[in-house]
Amino acid sequence: MSVLVILGSKSDARVGEKVTKALDKLKITYRIVIASAHRTPKYLMELVEKSEADIFIGVAGLAAALPGAIASHTHRPVIGVPVSGKVNLDSILSITQMPPGVPVAAVGLDNGENAAILAAEMLAIKDKELERRLKEYREERSKAVLEG
Amino acid sequence: MSVLVILGSKSDARVGEKVTKALDKLKITYRIVIASAHRTPKYLMELVEKSEADIFIGVAGLAAALPGAIASHTHRPVIGVPVSGKVNLDSILSITQMPPGVPVAAVGLDNGENAAILAAEMLAIKDKELERRLKEYREERSKAVLEG
Amino acid sequence: MSVLVILGSKSDARVGEKVTKALDKLKITYRIVIASAHRTPKYLMELVEKSEADIFIGVAGLAAALPGAIASHTHRPVIGVPVSGKVNLDSILSITQMPPGVPVAAVGLDNGENAAILAAEMLAIKDKELERRLKEYREERSKAVLEG
Amino acid sequence: MSVLVILGSKSDARVGEKVTKALDKLKITYRIVIASAHRTPKYLMELVEKSEADIFIGVAGLAAALPGAIASHTHRPVIGVPVSGKVNLDSILSITQMPPGVPVAAVGLDNGENAAILAAEMLAIKDKELERRLKEYREERSKAVLEG
Amino acid sequence: MSVLVILGSKSDARVGEKVTKALDKLKITYRIVIASAHRTPKYLMELVEKSEADIFIGVAGLAAALPGAIASHTHRPVIGVPVSGKVNLDSILSITQMPPGVPVAAVGLDNGENAAILAAEMLAIKDKELERRLKEYREERSKAVLEG
Amino acid sequence: MSVLVILGSKSDARVGEKVTKALDKLKITYRIVIASAHRTPKYLMELVEKSEADIFIGVAGLAAALPGAIASHTHRPVIGVPVSGKVNLDSILSITQMPPGVPVAAVGLDNGENAAILAAEMLAIKDKELERRLKEYREERSKAVLEG
Amino acid sequence: MSVLVILGSKSDARVGEKVTKALDKLKITYRIVIASAHRTPKYLMELVEKSEADIFIGVAGLAAALPGAIASHTHRPVIGVPVSGKVNLDSILSITQMPPGVPVAAVGLDNGENAAILAAEMLAIKDKELERRLKEYREERSKAVLEG
Amino acid sequence: MSVLVILGSKSDARVGEKVTKALDKLKITYRIVIASAHRTPKYLMELVEKSEADIFIGVAGLAAALPGAIASHTHRPVIGVPVSGKVNLDSILSITQMPPGVPVAAVGLDNGENAAILAAEMLAIKDKELERRLKEYREERSKAVLEG
Repeated sequence: MSVLVILGSKSDARVGEKVTKALDKLKITYRIVIASAHRTPKYLMELVEKSEADIFIGVAGLAAALPGAIASHTHRPVIGVPVSGKVNLDSILSITQMPPGVPVAAVGLDNGENAAILAAEMLAIKDKELERRLKEYREERSKAVLEG
Repeated sequence: MSVLVILGSKSDARVGEKVTKALDKLKITYRIVIASAHRTPKYLMELVEKSEADIFIGVAGLAAALPGAIASHTHRPVIGVPVSGKVNLDSILSITQMPPGVPVAAVGLDNGENAAILAAEMLAIKDKELERRLKEYREERSKAVLEG
Repeated sequence: MSVLVILGSKSDARVGEKVTKALDKLKITYRIVIASAHRTPKYLMELVEKSEADIFIGVAGLAAALPGAIASHTHRPVIGVPVSGKVNLDSILSITQMPPGVPVAAVGLDNGENAAILAAEMLAIKDKELERRLKEYREERSKAVLEG
Repeated sequence: MSVLVILGSKSDARVGEKVTKALDKLKITYRIVIASAHRTPKYLMELVEKSEADIFIGVAGLAAALPGAIASHTHRPVIGVPVSGKVNLDSILSITQMPPGVPVAAVGLDNGENAAILAAEMLAIKDKELERRLKEYREERSKAVLEG
Repeated sequence: MSVLVILGSKSDARVGEKVTKALDKLKITYRIVIASAHRTPKYLMELVEKSEADIFIGVAGLAAALPGAIASHTHRPVIGVPVSGKVNLDSILSITQMPPGVPVAAVGLDNGENAAILAAEMLAIKDKELERRLKEYREERSKAVLEG
Repeated sequence: MSVLVILGSKSDARVGEKVTKALDKLKITYRIVIASAHRTPKYLMELVEKSEADIFIGVAGLAAALPGAIASHTHRPVIGVPVSGKVNLDSILSITQMPPGVPVAAVGLDNGENAAILAAEMLAIKDKELERRLKEYREERSKAVLEG
Repeated sequence: MSVLVILGSKSDARVGEKVTKALDKLKITYRIVIASAHRTPKYLMELVEKSEADIFIGVAGLAAALPGAIASHTHRPVIGVPVSGKVNLDSILSITQMPPGVPVAAVGLDNGENAAILAAEMLAIKDKELERRLKEYREERSKAVLEG
Repeated sequence: MSVLVILGSKSDARVGEKVTKALDKLKITYRIVIASAHRTPKYLMELVEKSEADIFIGVAGLAAALPGAIASHTHRPVIGVPVSGKVNLDSILSITQMPPGVPVAAVGLDNGENAAILAAEMLAIKDKELERRLKEYREERSKAVLEG
């Protein structure tokens, strides 16, 4: 399996679907689960440690500790998607402002699609076939703009 | 031991000293250690799970996940102290905006003294002698204002 | 009585119900009243001074002075719940940024449930039976996430 | 006496001096004291209730509850001066965002001079002599700009 | 006439009504007009200079220059009411952060009622009868809270 | 004369110098004066109305009403330069968030150079010689980056 | 052609219509296209380089790089219109905070009308007939306020 | 070559050194250049298109368009490092809030080290030897915390 998508709670499913929809289009294998950094920390730790995923995507709102918590348990790339709420700066800053030594790759608020594309870009570094699909995907998007 | 004070990194020591100075004055037993939610997650988990402390105080800056991570490993009260930096709203929001189910008691930016007093207030609920010391402490502070 | 829940105005009832719903589940005795730091300061002062509550929870929006005003009249723990509105940073900062010497334990925006759990955690320091109920409560919540 | 200037703590003296310097120039009688909304609430209440001042000026930083607390004890005009710190939006919002029914007249961050002029403007409504001095004061300021 | 209420545009009428409703209850004479600091600057200047109002209330959103523009043309007190929109910090900061020398008394976002009460407080400094009505008004409000 | 540079106060001279330094390099005729929207509104009005400048540049901090006030008195382009202080969002939002009908062209915080280049770009629409100098100016800047 | 209006995506059409509606009223020739700084960078570059427009208007939300990207390819004036979304400070700051050397003239959030008027003001510097239409346009707007 | 580090200007070198220091320790091949999205857009485009780097790191402040501009010219992963200044939210939001379709992996303010580690994590997906060095690097960092 290539990507493990973890949602902080059921209410993050709306953004999670954007991730999986794009992963499907890019034909990237993935699994999607719910696991909370704060409410199920041990389950999350085991999930991450046992996982053979190449990349993790954490989707969370509020004091969005999930992507950082995933990153604390793995040396593989972790992408964080802040989920919108009443404050918005909370999840954006909780995911971007990681301390030196434990990076998270933050994408924009509710921007599940970009998390998927970013994962594809990482995997395509050594996968020519995926690189081709990725180019196609982005060219389609560019065309959609021009035909707007 | 009553209170376990955990700093996210050496650079938080300046705020940690405010905590311990007030705990000393209030004659509350404590231990102070450094443990990072992101860089030493297992050490932190074991530290919290094995601890017999009644209360935890987490001191951290940036995407300050430490207090929330402590709270994910214990049912005892966790007080969070956001540490100032270049953004400030990052640590304040990362500590206050915890998801429902796992509370952290946030105090103000760099406000280590209030974390100590809050811990004292919690312990004093069933400790008349500590309640007396606490009143004294706060009366002295009030006097200092009036004599300002 | 263990907890006195004070709402700054009728419009805070929506968040107040989250507090009392969780206190009910945790079987913690409480009373809930409306009292405004700005509109009924003396009533508030007398209410707090005469109260035998172990813990106070203040729920308020805008320049949310209520939790701080409660804290100015007691040496017992005060938990503050910021209520959402058009600005949100106003109530969050008015509750977290207390001056040194008079702590308030801030929880997240509209997060009445966390105020209740935090109160339970404080009371459970010396109450094994409540500690048991609290663990149950949090385990249920964790399960809900896993079954999500 | 016309104006009672209240500082939330000694550290607000720098801004308090801007207030009194302008009141001196405008020849307005005043008294200046330190009293904290949070640390000396009863002293503050008595101070305000017994005061024969026509106008109150509250100078405070952080979760600047002082002007609002003064306003809760009087029907006379209260001017609030937010004091700068590490966050700044905290004192500005804590003073401006008062609930309906209990107004505070907020001036800008650290802007003690404007608090004094505003007080003069209020008193000058029925005091032709003060109105004359006020005009002089503001004309001097305008000239200073033009001669800049 | 005692108070001149100026709205920056028709869209501010919703907040203007809060002002006049409270002025009506307090039996304060007023006139309400629309005049824009940016679109009708000369009309605004003449309006203010010719006015015999004791107090001005400016209601405006966005880069809310109206209250400051009024204040630039008079030595009488000017109260500013920021109107909510998509940003909110824009109107709050545009009204509070006036330069030294030209004060505006800022009240909270959309808080037309507080502008009216503040005007009443200013006028009541030398008007015992209005002071009585003002006390009644605020007592009613306090009661409403207690009966909440 | 082509450009009239107006500073809100002497303290804005630091940013004003960036404007005039770039105007000098671009060989654009200008005059620089101090005039405050709030403290010398009539002088400002006359200055703008009598001016034969093609473009106005207003430099101001805090509730930076100056550029908007200039724009209210002319149909020619007005460029606004927000000046930094303790809040920064105040001057940025006071200059950008103008109401529909009265535009100000906002540039970045303290970015006097961009105000000058923007003025040059406007004047160069019908001035081939200036367009040439402008290109040179920007090419030099690009080279400086490459030689960085 | 005088003005080239570029939208970052179809979803910016709502604001684009405000631009073209005002350009129509001012009888200014324009063309409107969709081109994304991020998704169609080369198309954008060619579009700008080949364009004979005197002025460019870029309309974009989020990390609104479009106006800056246009400015990087031309020495003619570029006006940027930030489009509202969930954060708003993102598009405002992405457009205003351009680096020294490459100016963008930022107008307010969603304020397409002001972009059009600003373009008219620039073109009117050397076009007396347009200046007349512009005055009429702004006088009508002022009247609308007075008749409000 | 594995990584191309691009600085938006000379003033970003301080943060660029954090990137290269960590890349050196991780023994990752890289090149570092200065190229501005706004001042040298074509040079930047050619640089990116011709580059055989597997990963790009863009370091920029203010309206930090650099990482997004790089991403618009490549299908390989782009990491963005916001550089601190007077506003800070400008560079953070300009880098995180990319539109759907063109991702940038944002790290924290001035956090050059995390950009380097994140690049290492991406390259280590298919490079066991680098994965080993990465683990060592992160273990050293964890030890440093524990020995703190």
